[in-house]
Amino acid sequence: MSREQAETSAVALKAVADPVRLRLLSIIRDSDGGEACVCDLTPAVGLSQPTVSHHLKVLTEAGLIEREKRGTWAWFRLVPSRLEELRAILS
Amino acid sequence: MSREQAETSAVALKAVADPVRLRLLSIIRDSDGGEACVCDLTPAVGLSQPTVSHHLKVLTEAGLIEREKRGTWAWFRLVPSRLEELRAILS
Repeated sequence: MSREQAETSAVALKAVADPVRLRLLSIIRDSDGGEACVCDLTPAVGLSQPTVSHHLKVLTEAGLIEREKRGTWAWFRLVPSRLEELRAILS
Repeated sequence: MSREQAETSAVALKAVADPVRLRLLSIIRDSDGGEACVCDLTPAVGLSQPTVSHHLKVLTEAGLIEREKRGTWAWFRLVPSRLEELRAILS
């Protein structure tokens, strides 16, 4: 593994190395249709909406989830290929 | 995923979410017999021996590698079951 690959991989792993973000990923994965809105995620993790939005932004920027605005709410779903990349790093 | 599971998993992921530690895991995996000593790892990553030893300690405490003292040097090998657990978290 080159130094550059290691730097890039560490950034993505840091994004998931957080208990709230791991729970958000797990809840999104298990939601109907594989997607969840902030309105579902906020009560599920028991934190404020700004805090949940911050964690969702970190996951979105790391490419682990994608965001789609529909009506009042933004909906989030996993990006399976990106999670597969992280699993490959650990293989 | 429960709050407790998320906390435990985040600790293990934090241990690998570091570019030097990712490179150390990669070098150990690719070494002859699947094991490497600090004497091999220090020149391979181009850092001082105390720094490399610190990173190896973090990985050992997270259960991702195991250490065996033989003669002058400590030898390290991966703990595949622990890495599989991390992959499962991301599945």
